[in-house]
Amino acid sequence: MFHFEPIEIIGFIAAILTTSAFIPQVYRAWKTKNVEAISLTMFIAMFIGVILWLVYGIYINSLSMVIANTITSLLSLVIIVLKIRHRND
Amino acid sequence: MFHFEPIEIIGFIAAILTTSAFIPQVYRAWKTKNVEAISLTMFIAMFIGVILWLVYGIYINSLSMVIANTITSLLSLVIIVLKIRHRND
Repeated sequence: MFHFEPIEIIGFIAAILTTSAFIPQVYRAWKTKNVEAISLTMFIAMFIGVILWLVYGIYINSLSMVIANTITSLLSLVIIVLKIRHRND
Repeated sequence: MFHFEPIEIIGFIAAILTTSAFIPQVYRAWKTKNVEAISLTMFIAMFIGVILWLVYGIYINSLSMVIANTITSLLSLVIIVLKIRHRND
């Protein structure tokens, strides 16, 4: 299914950077449960968008896009769950 | 250069969602100049990652990736400039 092309190296570096750039925010939200400044609508829009990029990546056989958007969708989901659970804190 | 394929519709919707999810944060930073909670390292990592996704999108002829990552890279750049300018406020 996924054939390896040199451009995937660029994709993997991009995936590592854009995904890891997102982790501190998720970690902080997880640790502090302080999700007040986080907009639920923004994260739901982002989550749907990332899922669509995942579908796009699968369709065009881009392993780096599939990996990046799988991880980012899970991270967005963590934030959405935290936001819903701790909304009234 | 860019041939239109049905999957690009998915790409465009994803582009609109993930890009627009980012705008409120940029708008708030621009309006309030309050960039304290924003991590410069995170945004530089994100900026480089998004530029690489832009290169990736150009290489694989993905118009939706090129548009999404062009806009997101400009938005990240706005945040980086604001963060550098207002770091000592």
